[in-house]
Order: sequence, then C-alpha cells, then structure tokens
Amino acid sequence: MENKYIFVNDQFIHHAEAKLHVSDLSIQRGYGIFDFLKTIDFHPVFIDDYLDRFYRSAKEMNLAPPHERTELKSLVKQLIEKNHIANSGIKLILTGGFSEDGFTLNEKPNFMMVQSPLNISDTIFEKGLKLITNNFQRQVPSVKTIDYLQAIRTWPQVISCQADDILYHKDGAVRECPRANLFMVKGHEVLTPKTDILKGITRSKVLSLNEMGLNIAERDFSLEDLKTADEVFITVTTKNICPVLQIDGKPVNNGNIGKITRNLSNLLQQLISKDIENKNGFNI
Amino acid sequence: MENKYIFVNDQFIHHAEAKLHVSDLSIQRGYGIFDFLKTIDFHPVFIDDYLDRFYRSAKEMNLAPPHERTELKSLVKQLIEKNHIANSGIKLILTGGFSEDGFTLNEKPNFMMVQSPLNISDTIFEKGLKLITNNFQRQVPSVKTIDYLQAIRTWPQVISCQADDILYHKDGAVRECPRANLFMVKGHEVLTPKTDILKGITRSKVLSLNEMGLNIAERDFSLEDLKTADEVFITVTTKNICPVLQIDGKPVNNGNIGKITRNLSNLLQQLISKDIENKNGFNI
Repeated sequence: MENKYIFVNDQFIHHAEAKLHVSDLSIQRGYGIFDFLKTIDFHPVFIDDYLDRFYRSAKEMNLAPPHERTELKSLVKQLIEKNHIANSGIKLILTGGFSEDGFTLNEKPNFMMVQSPLNISDTIFEKGLKLITNNFQRQVPSVKTIDYLQAIRTWPQVISCQADDILYHKDGAVRECPRANLFMVKGHEVLTPKTDILKGITRSKVLSLNEMGLNIAERDFSLEDLKTADEVFITVTTKNICPVLQIDGKPVNNGNIGKITRNLSNLLQQLISKDIENKNGFNI
Repeated sequence: MENKYIFVNDQFIHHAEAKLHVSDLSIQRGYGIFDFLKTIDFHPVFIDDYLDRFYRSAKEMNLAPPHERTELKSLVKQLIEKNHIANSGIKLILTGGFSEDGFTLNEKPNFMMVQSPLNISDTIFEKGLKLITNNFQRQVPSVKTIDYLQAIRTWPQVISCQADDILYHKDGAVRECPRANLFMVKGHEVLTPKTDILKGITRSKVLSLNEMGLNIAERDFSLEDLKTADEVFITVTTKNICPVLQIDGKPVNNGNIGKITRNLSNLLQQLISKDIENKNGFNI
C-alpha cells in the first residue's frame, strides 16, 4: 500500500506520510467514530447508507465532520481514482481532534480516509464460520465508535478455539459480532436482534428482502433460542452474508449451509449488482 | 510546549514532530492503555505504584511494553531532565501498535511519554467540586485503558450544569468519576467503592491512612447512601484530595468542606512530602 494515498483532513497524502500528532484524542482517549464501505469495480456500494450512518455517528459523539455530503462523495471519488483499486474497503475515520489538555474535544476533528484491497471470495461463504460467545454489551451501541477494546482483547480466545469470530450476548440475550450482525432462521422466520446493537448497512439490506414467503424481522432472542435455529448467518460489509456453521463448538444445521441462507445471499448479491449498475453518480 | 520533548518508542522527539502513523490501533480501534503520574520539584511522586499499574494494565490488554522497569525509570528521569518542568504530569501511553489490517494487534506496541506543566493549587481544594451523576459502567474497569468515550461524550452536560465532573453509578451503585475515585465520610467511617472501578494510586494512599480513629475501608454504597454522607471527596493524581460540595445540585455538608476531608488531605500531603524526601533514586 506504500504507493497509495490516504486522505487526511484536506489533502491526499502518501501512505507512509499519513500521521497524526500524539495529542489527537483517539490516541489520548480512544475518542472517535468511523465507517467502512466497499467498492466493487470502482463503485462504492450503497454509499449513501454508509454516509447517513457516518454523519449520524458524528453527531451522536459531538463531532463536526469537516466535509458536507456532496464534498465528501467527491473526495471518496477522488480517492478511488487516485488509488485505482477496483475492489476495496474504504474506511472513514473522524477523531476528537488535537487536544491541548488531552481531554477536551477540539472543535476541529481530524478526518481520514484509508483504502485497502478487499476481495470477497466464495471460498469464505462455502467454508462458513465458527463463532465463540462472549458476555459483553458494547457501550454507546448504536454509534459506530472506534471502540474495539473488548474484541481485540478477547481475540486470543478466538485463535485458541480455532474459531473465526466472537458473538456478544448480554446475560444470554444475543446481540451482535464485534464487526457483524447476526441472523437466525427458524421455520419461516428470519430474525435479527433489535436491542443495543449497531445497525449494519448489510443487515438493513437483508431486512428489506421480504421475498420467498419469509418473515424477516428485528426481534430479540436468546442464546437458548439460537441453539434451536435451523440456520444462522452473519451480515457484514466485507463478506455480505456468511453462514455460521458452529457456535461454541456445537454444529448449526449439522454443519451444512442452509437453503434460506444461500437464497438470501443470492438476493443480496442482486441488490448489490443493481446498485453497481445504477452507479449513484460514481461512474469513473 | 513546542520546545519540549515527547518520548516516542525509543527516542526523544520535539513536541511538534511526535506523530503516529494512522494505522496505529489507538486511531483505528481505540486500543491502548496509559498511566499518569506527577512530578513535584522534579520528583516523580509514588512512581513505583504508577509503574506497577502501568505494567499490570499492559498485561491485561496483551500489550508488551518495550522497556522494562529500570530502563523505563531511567527514561522518565531523562524526560524530566530534558524538559526541565519542575511540577508536571507525565502521561505514559501504550497503544496496540501499527496494524496492517486495522484490527490485528501488533506484537510491537507504540509507547509514548508526554509531559505537561501541572500545579496543584489550594484554590481548587477550597472551592470544592460540583458533580453530576451518570448511570454508566466502564468496560474493563480495573484496567487504565484509553477509553473515555462516555466521559467526553457526556461533558457538555457537565458544562451546561455548571458542574466540575461526572460521578458514574451503575443502577444506583456508586462507582467512580471518569478520572478520579470517590470517598464518602459518614460518622467514623470513610468508605470508597470496591466493585468494578479503577483503583487509583491516590485512593490507595488514602486507604493506607488509618489514623485519627477512622475506619477507612473499601465498601460499596449507593447514591441513596451518598445523600446521607457527612462529607464527600474525590482522590486524583492531579488534585490529591478535593472536597465535593454539591451532587446533582444538592449541597453536601451544607456546602462546607468537612473536617475529616481536610485532615486526610493534610495527611496525604505528608505522605507525598515523605516520598519527595526519600527521592526513590530520582535525585536530579
């Protein structure tokens, strides 16, 4: 990535030179928000949904983004042009800015955009995921803050269990994965938790797929309910829909990818393809 | 502070040049720990207690500090000599390091030491503090992480209430202030909460002051209990002991500084003076 650009505040900077002074409140106090969208064939998929959430998160954390939406879209477009990575993830970060006393929020936050290659392969879908559960409630759950203390701290357990990700629950009430939402299929219902979670963009797209005679809904359920699920899958920008085939060492659906998961995955792909065709003004 | 030095990883760097690449996990994921000690007349007060906690926090968060204790003490000494600020706060920060994928912990964390002037005046003690309460439980409470999302996010309320700080409680159980511990005096008992808090160094020094026929103890209490307190004070490195004279707009001890608070403050001052006299090998 060394020959690529990172956008910092108001300019495109060579990757290696993109630095922040240590007085920034992200370094001093872990204070910031971000969002993460993907490009496919140079097109930023569902960009308006991600920007909606980015501005909402900023507002919730008293951060004033330095660029309004039209300008920001133009900057995203310039980043894509400059770096020329067709399939990528673009991370927008907004921190508390430089703070003289290391605590007081600066009226001028620091803003960054970092782009990295991202290729979503069928291999990950076909392999499926193994989750381990962890009793934890994210703070300020509805906001996409940069706070991943618990996920990174708990990661050695994921590795030692040869798992792929963590599933948070609060005293048995299923919440979310650190970077993904969870869905459970049971009979003709497809459910995803509603309370104290980050509402993912991919999650919202799946909720919009009311086809196939399915009842797709936001409704809380417990780890006990999850044990009786026919199918389980996660939604996440970097993987779209991905089946969960094991939770805490116990197989889901006998370790097989379910029919509904596969169908919803195809329908989501169609939504993504439609967004790419429509181009939303990002035809470059 | 522009002519002062900040220590970054293995060198002393001019203040303005002390920067981290944006791939650092504090910026990407709010991942890091820190500690904060003070110098009085060039002497780092209770340094071993602060370093104990610093190494403990690092271990809890799977971070390997780049300098072992003797070396670190020598670096603190060099920082004090170079910057020549007699009365100061020194912040040691250890982050998750540069992360290629913006999530995976680097085996090599980034380490910084920042020194700023700090003068503890009697004025703050005599003025006392006004607190507002906030229902919140810090995550990983026993570790001094850089996570201050809630405090900074809630600060506008402190300002609009013309208060000085926040007091966290968990559903009525008193915890701590974002950067300080709380004590309540009732009759001949002096109590400080025990559960799910960060155990401050100044707090531990006060707990060691079993004089004056007082029973100073760690024991949980509620906001209701706090309403009946004779005296309330906080302990914090930057202010030592400081009386709390108002909580949520209601006066404590009719808005007067209590006798026990004043006595404990004097005893704590004596402990600090003793530490300065002993010098702990920091005679420069």
